Amino acid sequence: MAVQKPSLPKGTRDFNPMQMGRRNFIFDTIKESFRLFGFQQLETPTMENLSTLTGKYGDEGDQLIFKILNSGDFLKDVSAEDLASGAGKTLPKVAEKGLRYDLTVPFARYVVMNRNDITLPFKRFQVQPVWRADRPQKGRYREFYQCDADVVGTDSLICELEILLMIKRVFSKLDIKDYSIKINNRKILTGLADVIGEPGRESALCVAIDKLDKIGWEKVKEELAQRDFSKDAIEKLNPIIHLEKSNLDKLDFLKGFLSTSEVGRQGIVELEEVFEFLQSYGEDQSHVDFDVVLARGLSYYTGAIFEVKVNNVSIGSVGGGGRYDNLTGIFGLEGVSGVGFSFGVDRIYDVMEELDIFPQGQLNETKVLITHFDEEGQKYGLTVLKALRDNGISSEIYPELGKIKKQFTYADKKQIPFVIILGADELAGGKVSLKNLETGHQESLSLADALAQIQ
Amino acid sequence: MAVQKPSLPKGTRDFNPMQMGRRNFIFDTIKESFRLFGFQQLETPTMENLSTLTGKYGDEGDQLIFKILNSGDFLKDVSAEDLASGAGKTLPKVAEKGLRYDLTVPFARYVVMNRNDITLPFKRFQVQPVWRADRPQKGRYREFYQCDADVVGTDSLICELEILLMIKRVFSKLDIKDYSIKINNRKILTGLADVIGEPGRESALCVAIDKLDKIGWEKVKEELAQRDFSKDAIEKLNPIIHLEKSNLDKLDFLKGFLSTSEVGRQGIVELEEVFEFLQSYGEDQSHVDFDVVLARGLSYYTGAIFEVKVNNVSIGSVGGGGRYDNLTGIFGLEGVSGVGFSFGVDRIYDVMEELDIFPQGQLNETKVLITHFDEEGQKYGLTVLKALRDNGISSEIYPELGKIKKQFTYADKKQIPFVIILGADELAGGKVSLKNLETGHQESLSLADALAQIQ
Repeated sequence: MAVQKPSLPKGTRDFNPMQMGRRNFIFDTIKESFRLFGFQQLETPTMENLSTLTGKYGDEGDQLIFKILNSGDFLKDVSAEDLASGAGKTLPKVAEKGLRYDLTVPFARYVVMNRNDITLPFKRFQVQPVWRADRPQKGRYREFYQCDADVVGTDSLICELEILLMIKRVFSKLDIKDYSIKINNRKILTGLADVIGEPGRESALCVAIDKLDKIGWEKVKEELAQRDFSKDAIEKLNPIIHLEKSNLDKLDFLKGFLSTSEVGRQGIVELEEVFEFLQSYGEDQSHVDFDVVLARGLSYYTGAIFEVKVNNVSIGSVGGGGRYDNLTGIFGLEGVSGVGFSFGVDRIYDVMEELDIFPQGQLNETKVLITHFDEEGQKYGLTVLKALRDNGISSEIYPELGKIKKQFTYADKKQIPFVIILGADELAGGKVSLKNLETGHQESLSLADALAQIQ
Repeated sequence: MAVQKPSLPKGTRDFNPMQMGRRNFIFDTIKESFRLFGFQQLETPTMENLSTLTGKYGDEGDQLIFKILNSGDFLKDVSAEDLASGAGKTLPKVAEKGLRYDLTVPFARYVVMNRNDITLPFKRFQVQPVWRADRPQKGRYREFYQCDADVVGTDSLICELEILLMIKRVFSKLDIKDYSIKINNRKILTGLADVIGEPGRESALCVAIDKLDKIGWEKVKEELAQRDFSKDAIEKLNPIIHLEKSNLDKLDFLKGFLSTSEVGRQGIVELEEVFEFLQSYGEDQSHVDFDVVLARGLSYYTGAIFEVKVNNVSIGSVGGGGRYDNLTGIFGLEGVSGVGFSFGVDRIYDVMEELDIFPQGQLNETKVLITHFDEEGQKYGLTVLKALRDNGISSEIYPELGKIKKQFTYADKKQIPFVIILGADELAGGKVSLKNLETGHQESLSLADALAQIQ
């Protein structure tokens, strides 16, 4: 058989041990926070029926779902006529399943299918990969992880508080210092559209304003004009765009600015309550940035909107979320509201690499390598190995007999910090020589003393 | 839009929080053991190129690989002629990628693609799901996890020792008491075929003998005869089939029985060395069962063969492995030998459920729920919540105001062991009432004393 030169599918990645150590550091930090806050883990299958997935992510999203070819004779229902009419018509006949596209739709499906067994409020978290047939580019992969936490079945703004607290805890534990949790409320955006005299047009408004950072206020004004916002409406936005104040001052300002919009006032009340809860909890407002024009997920978010950005790095946004009114309506279960947040682990990884703030050395790895000069030393090494492991120390013995230099090279390449050397002297004296590869210090010790040193 | 009643694809499963707690208990136990033994984690993508996957699992395996439909106009290269000639000819034109079928082929691909960066011996572990388009049935799923550990790049039998030790440690930590690690050596099987006068026919021999437990020796003899084994050869097998001895006695017996087969003698030497290493390490041979007729993976295993069975449960085999000579030859890299073992987590889960040996209660879950009677109590509760979490205690506050009974029901359903109650008395006295839901005991305490009690 001709030998194949293997390769990876576009947009997918292997993760080597060093990368896995770092990824696990992020995953473990997030999961530990989710659990500390009382969220429970859920996992759903990689494959979902296409009837579950399609129509949930818009037309573009439907295109980006990876479809699984039916097993067996997948062509059995396909006629020459189907073929002639194209891929769209043929698809339902050759594929019934697709790969998970996000964690929200499978969660909604789960809630509907298990509605009788779930106790509300239901606090769930989910950490799994998703797949999108997107064009791969820097920071965008075809397989990537999402880490979602949602509370469904309650309108309590305690949940918004919890999300703020969880984000702060995760970033503190990851040692990411310069970041902002942008928070807004959909009702405030609705109120803005109301008071500038363009009621119901907050989506169009936000699409334009969203570009503020990139293109500047003058260009945004042009775009708003093109979108048929009146000159008067655009001028009214001016103070909002240039709002450089503290969170509380912004709220004060908006109380006046939005006073004629009932829904706008409601948005302010909600945001104020979240800030009050934060104070009651005993947490300050550092990193929390009320952004009056923050808009995302306007087709589903109805209350709070969150986005987390790390400052001064090339990839900014590392997570987002918000409150929604109707998670499961599409599956026939009305009235399930909730609030959720999603950490983008792959982006957090890239950010931490750019900032060079991962803990040093290999994570979760071998701490001691036992080396030896001959069979007798190796045999003695096995008893030492057992003692190390019985004390919970990750350790290995060099499996082959041979040059000590090769054994040290192995330790070096694997970044193992300690080497135990078992030569004739050590065997005769019932001791071990322990070498710290970082400091270069080596000494002859009893096994018990060596264990103590390593720990 | 018509409301859809959602469902799961055949052979796939959701895992609810209780199941996830139990699954994580198994995964964490296995991963912790892998790390203690110096194995490093690797992850490979869910999708592999079909050129990587096909031809590696036999014709039947190729059928069972889930294929991903090419994105975009997947029919663009398909002619009416292709359609007429059937699915086999059309497949390469509509699908380039497939889902991971096992962890070994992706590992081999990884080793080949990263050969210049890998330090040998390379000890890797991998814990990821795999997918097979198999007919679903009890204990057989279309998506299931494999947990593999392999050492490649060394012939040292220390690696076989490590696999035995790792298995013993995992089952001990899982509290599975009645199990056997069956061990054999491919060379012994080759030797058996030699000495009964049917050299090179160990595969046919083993296919028949493998049915011994199910159909008995008389029927196996019939099958061997049908497979053209001579009467003489079959009779010579008699003592092997009825070998009821200790591991060491079996070895002694085989030294005589296989004395005329050089490769058979080599198999015995290897097995003896593994047992000697076990003794040097200070571990006894309990659970280790030398099974002279254990045969699996004969198309790739060349040395040790392992299989783990839990006794007295409906699903027996929960893992297997062995030594191979040529992991990566199919990808053009010769001479990479190694030994590996795979834990079947889904089966271990089923076994532990059948034996009812999972740790009691919810695993990794909320320990305290804070309940309250009014806004003031809830606000006070937030400070208590912070104190609990600052002490590393998983805790939540009931997010809504309302009946205390409902709050207790929530704790009960979620199996939260402690409830803190914050009423007017507690607020006035700066105390908390702590109720242990298991014992029913309730007392009024300072926050510090409550924290101590909970921990």
